[in-house]
Amino acid sequence: MSLKLTILGCHSATPRVNAHPTSQILQIRNHHFLIDCGEGTQVQMRKYKISFAKVKHIFISHLHGDHYYGLIGLISTFGLLNREKELHIYGPKGLQEIIKLQMKFSQSRIGYPIIFHELNSANSELIYEDKKVTVHTIPLNHRIYTNGFLFKEKPTLRKLDIEAVGKYPEIETCDYYNIKKGKDFVKKDGSIIKNELLSFSPHTPLSYAYCSDTAYHESIVNLIRNVNLLYHESTFLTDKEQLATKTGHSTALQAGKIAALAEVKILLLGHYSNRYRILPKFQKEAQKVFKHTLLAVEGTTFEVE
Amino acid sequence: MSLKLTILGCHSATPRVNAHPTSQILQIRNHHFLIDCGEGTQVQMRKYKISFAKVKHIFISHLHGDHYYGLIGLISTFGLLNREKELHIYGPKGLQEIIKLQMKFSQSRIGYPIIFHELNSANSELIYEDKKVTVHTIPLNHRIYTNGFLFKEKPTLRKLDIEAVGKYPEIETCDYYNIKKGKDFVKKDGSIIKNELLSFSPHTPLSYAYCSDTAYHESIVNLIRNVNLLYHESTFLTDKEQLATKTGHSTALQAGKIAALAEVKILLLGHYSNRYRILPKFQKEAQKVFKHTLLAVEGTTFEVE
Repeated sequence: MSLKLTILGCHSATPRVNAHPTSQILQIRNHHFLIDCGEGTQVQMRKYKISFAKVKHIFISHLHGDHYYGLIGLISTFGLLNREKELHIYGPKGLQEIIKLQMKFSQSRIGYPIIFHELNSANSELIYEDKKVTVHTIPLNHRIYTNGFLFKEKPTLRKLDIEAVGKYPEIETCDYYNIKKGKDFVKKDGSIIKNELLSFSPHTPLSYAYCSDTAYHESIVNLIRNVNLLYHESTFLTDKEQLATKTGHSTALQAGKIAALAEVKILLLGHYSNRYRILPKFQKEAQKVFKHTLLAVEGTTFEVE
Repeated sequence: MSLKLTILGCHSATPRVNAHPTSQILQIRNHHFLIDCGEGTQVQMRKYKISFAKVKHIFISHLHGDHYYGLIGLISTFGLLNREKELHIYGPKGLQEIIKLQMKFSQSRIGYPIIFHELNSANSELIYEDKKVTVHTIPLNHRIYTNGFLFKEKPTLRKLDIEAVGKYPEIETCDYYNIKKGKDFVKKDGSIIKNELLSFSPHTPLSYAYCSDTAYHESIVNLIRNVNLLYHESTFLTDKEQLATKTGHSTALQAGKIAALAEVKILLLGHYSNRYRILPKFQKEAQKVFKHTLLAVEGTTFEVE
């Protein structure tokens, strides 16, 4: 099992030729979750060979343009490509109204259902769940209502040790499911075969936390504790800490502190301000407090196994 | 005097890596008029070194996404760059509502005035005028309310023939303006010096007509007669004439017919459907009926003198 995160854009504010605003594709358990959708995201998806058809869920953190101006174009393109599959969009109040207003004036028919999931809670909530994954919001501290998102695999069943099971003729196929669930096998004479003799430990569930945009906000630490991968915005370096506080953003050092407090496995930085030209400075700054820090780079896929 | 048209995007429908949706910059008498603004226009402007500050007037033909989805991003970027100058936007009813709704939810302050000019007439009307240029709408025939735009230089004054004027000591500096306006000079004895002996013909006013999107629509011919440059959409070739009619678009041949009927100087084709890979076929088809046909190419500037 693995989790793959492809960066489509990792810069803040105004898009430039080689610096696109925020958008990511998370591949987790056969899902292709699109996270934020700045202007030009659909072109970035084409550039980096992301299948349009596989995207069924889009998560929008907040209604600043660099996180959602590309959404209406993507929705329109899905329509032009004769999409029929449902599209689920999770985002703040206002997003549905904006999208529907644009669709009304274009008078273009969209041949697939769009289901909006309006987010308005100030607390973390479960917003998506199936047999394999869950998605929770991570309330952030920005200038307007903003959520991060926590994507988690569910624990899988234990794996049957076929060879071991074969040694016990009294175990039948219909017993396998209980063994996979971790139950011991009880023989007819009442004696027990311990589960660990019959099955292997399951794959450890993976998790990804997306936190952008936000000021330094320790309240998120408990929500994202021990995640395998944390994307935390670092719009500024410490030289602009006051500006970061004023604008509801973080410095690379602050992102590192959150990663350290939450004891995550890997920290991924992004949402760089266009004022900085030497991005490794972000990594260096965060590494003062959290060693396993990487830099988001457009077009790069980060894989966690 | 000259008129310069820079193509920022000339493809229809969905944006691709090297095929951007419609947007153009017209330079005419020190104006930088932005015409349509598909997704990614601001990045194209950066790529082709178009000054953001010089754009004071934006003309939006209609509310299909490939003609305006980049507008909100451009407006936001102007704000982030601390623009103070007024921005005038000319477009159909609905555009103002869409832009204002997005600005409301972002809660971002824009530090410059935006003046919307809502277009709703079915007839051609004067929508901009100053001492040097006029802009009229060109009502088009598309699936939704759509205008093209006709940009015209105003006639300039005649040029003084300084050498000739010097031969007549009775002509004083205060008489020059009347001579430039074409008046004969009347001596004190009542005799006349003909104007053509004192001045040269002025520069011939240039004109540009932008017609996208539209089905074949002969009603525009009188409006665009004799323009120096006509941009007329050619979404399809004749092999898809039925589809063109159904979707409110034109073929290259139809664009050529309009150019011939209107006796324009040069026809520029664009708004190509993504289904076509060999664009010179568009030129070849239009040239069957109108020889002076060129193809719009992204990043190219067409100059008329």
